[in-house]
Amino acid sequence: MQKIKLFTPGPTMVPPEVTVAMAEPFDHHRTQAHRKILQNVTRKLQYVFQTKADCLVITGSGTAAMEAGIVGVGSPSSKALVVCGGKFSERWAKVCHNFGIKLIAHELEWGYGATAETVAGHLGRDKSIDTVIITHSETSTAAVSDVEAIAKITREHDCLLVVDGITSVGAIPVKMDEWGIDVLVCSSQKALMTPPGLGVIAVNERAWKRIQSFSPPAYYLRLQSYVEALQSNDSPYTPAITLVKGLNQALSMIEDEGIENIWRRTRRLAEATRAAMQAINLEVFAKHPVDSLTAIVLPESIDEPTFRRNLRERFGYVVAGGQGHLKGRIFRVNHMGYVDESDTLGLIGAIELLLHEMGHKFHLGNGPKAAISVLSRTA
Amino acid sequence: MQKIKLFTPGPTMVPPEVTVAMAEPFDHHRTQAHRKILQNVTRKLQYVFQTKADCLVITGSGTAAMEAGIVGVGSPSSKALVVCGGKFSERWAKVCHNFGIKLIAHELEWGYGATAETVAGHLGRDKSIDTVIITHSETSTAAVSDVEAIAKITREHDCLLVVDGITSVGAIPVKMDEWGIDVLVCSSQKALMTPPGLGVIAVNERAWKRIQSFSPPAYYLRLQSYVEALQSNDSPYTPAITLVKGLNQALSMIEDEGIENIWRRTRRLAEATRAAMQAINLEVFAKHPVDSLTAIVLPESIDEPTFRRNLRERFGYVVAGGQGHLKGRIFRVNHMGYVDESDTLGLIGAIELLLHEMGHKFHLGNGPKAAISVLSRTA
Repeated sequence: MQKIKLFTPGPTMVPPEVTVAMAEPFDHHRTQAHRKILQNVTRKLQYVFQTKADCLVITGSGTAAMEAGIVGVGSPSSKALVVCGGKFSERWAKVCHNFGIKLIAHELEWGYGATAETVAGHLGRDKSIDTVIITHSETSTAAVSDVEAIAKITREHDCLLVVDGITSVGAIPVKMDEWGIDVLVCSSQKALMTPPGLGVIAVNERAWKRIQSFSPPAYYLRLQSYVEALQSNDSPYTPAITLVKGLNQALSMIEDEGIENIWRRTRRLAEATRAAMQAINLEVFAKHPVDSLTAIVLPESIDEPTFRRNLRERFGYVVAGGQGHLKGRIFRVNHMGYVDESDTLGLIGAIELLLHEMGHKFHLGNGPKAAISVLSRTA
Repeated sequence: MQKIKLFTPGPTMVPPEVTVAMAEPFDHHRTQAHRKILQNVTRKLQYVFQTKADCLVITGSGTAAMEAGIVGVGSPSSKALVVCGGKFSERWAKVCHNFGIKLIAHELEWGYGATAETVAGHLGRDKSIDTVIITHSETSTAAVSDVEAIAKITREHDCLLVVDGITSVGAIPVKMDEWGIDVLVCSSQKALMTPPGLGVIAVNERAWKRIQSFSPPAYYLRLQSYVEALQSNDSPYTPAITLVKGLNQALSMIEDEGIENIWRRTRRLAEATRAAMQAINLEVFAKHPVDSLTAIVLPESIDEPTFRRNLRERFGYVVAGGQGHLKGRIFRVNHMGYVDESDTLGLIGAIELLLHEMGHKFHLGNGPKAAISVLSRTA
């Protein structure tokens, strides 16, 4: 027997209720039955995104949805500031580059998030910047950017703010309308508890003005087509029907739990995990740690591939390794979506047991003790 | 009780074996387990596409995969001939237009397929055409193009041939390498018997030369990223894991049946359906009918929405209506994938019963009789 427990920061664990919804007989997408599902999905996404804006569902990965947003607002006259502090934010700079969108890439040290000061500095110096692209939770480093404060700055400078919320929406506080995010992107396989294959993009009125002002090189990812189809609860191209049905079920579960409760649960799991890792003499990688996932530095004495292989083969836990220059140095564990206290305590225990056997020095039992202490204190 | 029977030309019916494969626990995509699945999918797709070329799986609809192909070969210096005879071929002209790819759109009367003569005429007159885009089976009209003969012409003129095989691959004979198709596209929800959400694109060496010669405005749909990832049986972005697992199962079933047997089965179902419809005084719309689906003209006395609603509510059959100017005039039924003789006879009987009740005149029983006669003769 081996129970595979996905603790990767996407895909995350999928509730059996969602699996069942995806396995039910499905209908053609141009029917009342499916339109009703898409209508419900849209409404519930607005709750999760904390917005009244249209939430458009695109069959594709989160990268596809981010490309749709970046290219959609990247008019020939515009210039984007991309704050890069990891693999995913660097990707958004590459998207700008491939489409010939003028950009300034501000490089952060990996592990830090974007701050209002950084953004304000650029916007003060260069008045031609009209778009700011921020990765809220940088999944490669588990660092968080201060999107709420950055949104104040972009409003003051009349810039559009495009936010990669792929590992933040539905996990940590994101308030699109209240904060003033103009374009916000998420994908199915993170806090939305659905298998990969759907990207979601919400676009506010300010962003629509820009989007409608020019014709970008886009067809499948042209946002206007999605918003036009949505008027009749439809999709412009054949959607991934089974995944939309799964998402509908997952969103109902999110609605039932309440988004504030989910934010709190995710934060508690993150705090417990960080405390546990520090208690067994491991370092949390990010200087601005996000609560949706945690990146942990492995001691030099521990061989990373061996550690992750053992964690999987002996305990069934699948965690992610590092990306780019962090490969072999860190591992990353998920707190988003369908993961609870006991899941997290189980993982912490397995990590402790394994590191002990691999010769890492610490007081046995300190990890779970620290985690339980946090969970008890914040209950 | 209502059994919904999807007879739309996509999405088509999904075998329970595929549903089960998609509902099983799934693994992270950057694991040996998933790489093995993608490797098997790729090998089996090569069999279905009849090619040794790389078959790239893209999370997205068939439109996404076609865009990847068109934009990938549409260099700034190239010019495309798009033969348009329905909604889907017109879409490929729009893709060229949105990306600024020079094109000649040759308009066919709807119901006809592209011929070698048409293509040869254009290539003879305009030496700057270096790409020909053909929709093999035009799903909006159920007409077939003579891709084998067209491929001879494009080879002679050293043009690249891009083929939309979305409702042809896996249903009717398509021999990528033997015929000389350079770029061939399909999607999961047709003959491949998997829910929608995956596009597949095969690209031969001739096409790769063009693709590698320039940088198109593309990121998510940039083909180089997919082929690079495939070297280690990987995907560049998080793939729709559950759908890939379903496709793997469906492809095994295709392999077990044998592609020639599937082509024969599909042809027999199409011939039986056409004979049955003609035997009850209905007209087959296409002058060059394809075998993967059939478009049938409704008599003016029959209200199309009422007909389709009754077919669904009373018998559970979901068939497609017309698109564009054919809306309300035709209905379309599927022969691709998981559909057999008895399924098709059931549909024919239901159509006959319903049209009789709606006042259409014909000899009762003629439809099934004609269908059975074809099935018996071609068994």
